[in-house]
Amino acid sequence: MKLTDLTRRAGEWLRGAGPMHDVVISSRIRLARNLAGMPFLSRCAPAQQEELANRLRDTILEAKIAPGMLYVDIVSAGELDRELLVERHLISRQQAEAKHPCGVAVNADEDLAIMVNEEDHLRIQVLRSGLQLSETIGKIMQVDDTLEEHMDFAFHSRFGYLTACPSNVGTGLRVSVMLHLPALKMTGEVEKAFRAASDMHLAIRGLYGEGTEASGDFFQVSNQTTIGKTEERIVEEFCEQIIPNFIDYERRARESLLSRRCSAVEDKIFRSVSLLRSARLIGSDETMYLLSLVRMGVHMGKVKDIDLKTINELFLLTQPAHLQRILNRTMEPPERSEARAEFIRRRLGAT
Amino acid sequence: MKLTDLTRRAGEWLRGAGPMHDVVISSRIRLARNLAGMPFLSRCAPAQQEELANRLRDTILEAKIAPGMLYVDIVSAGELDRELLVERHLISRQQAEAKHPCGVAVNADEDLAIMVNEEDHLRIQVLRSGLQLSETIGKIMQVDDTLEEHMDFAFHSRFGYLTACPSNVGTGLRVSVMLHLPALKMTGEVEKAFRAASDMHLAIRGLYGEGTEASGDFFQVSNQTTIGKTEERIVEEFCEQIIPNFIDYERRARESLLSRRCSAVEDKIFRSVSLLRSARLIGSDETMYLLSLVRMGVHMGKVKDIDLKTINELFLLTQPAHLQRILNRTMEPPERSEARAEFIRRRLGAT
Repeated sequence: MKLTDLTRRAGEWLRGAGPMHDVVISSRIRLARNLAGMPFLSRCAPAQQEELANRLRDTILEAKIAPGMLYVDIVSAGELDRELLVERHLISRQQAEAKHPCGVAVNADEDLAIMVNEEDHLRIQVLRSGLQLSETIGKIMQVDDTLEEHMDFAFHSRFGYLTACPSNVGTGLRVSVMLHLPALKMTGEVEKAFRAASDMHLAIRGLYGEGTEASGDFFQVSNQTTIGKTEERIVEEFCEQIIPNFIDYERRARESLLSRRCSAVEDKIFRSVSLLRSARLIGSDETMYLLSLVRMGVHMGKVKDIDLKTINELFLLTQPAHLQRILNRTMEPPERSEARAEFIRRRLGAT
Repeated sequence: MKLTDLTRRAGEWLRGAGPMHDVVISSRIRLARNLAGMPFLSRCAPAQQEELANRLRDTILEAKIAPGMLYVDIVSAGELDRELLVERHLISRQQAEAKHPCGVAVNADEDLAIMVNEEDHLRIQVLRSGLQLSETIGKIMQVDDTLEEHMDFAFHSRFGYLTACPSNVGTGLRVSVMLHLPALKMTGEVEKAFRAASDMHLAIRGLYGEGTEASGDFFQVSNQTTIGKTEERIVEEFCEQIIPNFIDYERRARESLLSRRCSAVEDKIFRSVSLLRSARLIGSDETMYLLSLVRMGVHMGKVKDIDLKTINELFLLTQPAHLQRILNRTMEPPERSEARAEFIRRRLGAT
């Protein structure tokens, strides 16, 4: 597999076919791991960082964790490729901007990514569409076990896995579920739901992680505590309580909108569809916002001539790096807006 | 003719077929006149105001100035009818809110309106579509002459016609040309054009006269000086210099937009068309704004499936009073927004 193959299709997480996909976009779990006997990355000398990167890359590839594993050296990759990986949620924004030796291993299905020399020596991530946390935890534990056959991880008998940031010590596990909550946003109840989440020590973030704004009504809910509970217990709370509550709130908000403010909802949905089909210049934030409303419209049965797959693909393919890669040319923002609008019109069968 | 007949069609001035209609919506001239030997309206006792109203109404109707002359008593007319007359530019906002006896006479073509007991005893108005000032001045002078055969107007050998407000003394004549300047607005040059107009002692106002904001890129240009020049000279300046300059500026701005910022212009135009065709709730300000851009799109040859007549009619028929009269029910603003959106979609053949 080559990196350019990625742009030809949407990653597993955005295919949108997973369970509860009317509200849950994706389920992600990541584990933070560090090699025993090696300093944390920020304490390593440049030569040590390079040695680490090479050693981890070789071990991952030799471990044959998944078929068609691709390894990308981040620093030598072009800027566009780094952006592409961020847009696909395969590396973090921080890693894309790193100057030290680092990389990422991605499997062919693109539901597994192993970041090398991010904040920790290893960040293992499994990302799947819809609410699939049991499958996700199963898979990531397998990957973790396989890797542990090839290397020793820093582990403390009392604290658990040791990590660069104390907030990850213990299981090193973070569950992040991406939710689509346009109705709660419209009814103004989203703040209330988030206050409840915050009381449960959950973090709410935007589409691209820490420090990003929620755009297009997408919100990432994740655990803040990694210690004091087993991996299974953390996941169980998400599956049985936290996420079902959000799904229930959002579905009820949609029903209430449809019965009490139907015109207002239809207005937003149909305006969004027709703006996407008519714009000649469009930025990625507006695109996200409009697609979000169209997505809700499809699930409400209001939009019948656009399928979910097309919408989900557009979320990704209209991002700056994807757009440039697909159209095979680098473009400044004004030119991108024009190309994005044309791309969307073509995909949606503009009127 | 009955008042309800008015809603069945657009007034002459909005049929939009007049000369230079790409930039000039309408040409209006009005004359302020007061009866000799009677105090100005604000100095009249209530009984005198009533006597004046009756006498003027009878004289106008007896003078047989135009075929099918309709006289509307403003105070006894319902609120909706008063609003209807304002929306059609047949009476002023001030007159619609008057509590004293007053009225308006309107001819069948609706290009002539004679307001009784507005600020002056009589305000004679001729309103035509496009740039038709010579025709307009010809017609209004004729009406003025005919009326003068039936009554004496207050006239001073040195000052000319005497009026309630000194700003109208002399000719009592105000020329107002309604311009559509969307391109100058987009290029930001409209302010410059208005500063030049202000240096020439011209007033710039919005669509509904004094104190109203320009909405939908419509601007009313009118003279501020009524004394020291003949009627013919005032009109000549508008026809030969002031308006041709505005037309020239606006046309050049449109050409420049098309050659330098074509995507930005097309974006605005096509978004407007599709919002009008898809909205489920829409206010009259937004409607005006969107129709204005579609109107420019038609003149630029970008919008081919909507004709100018439909757009011009929609400007008027989507106003609150017209909408309620057409749909034959009184509605609060939220209900109006829904009805307006539906009305527009039906007229434009929504997709």
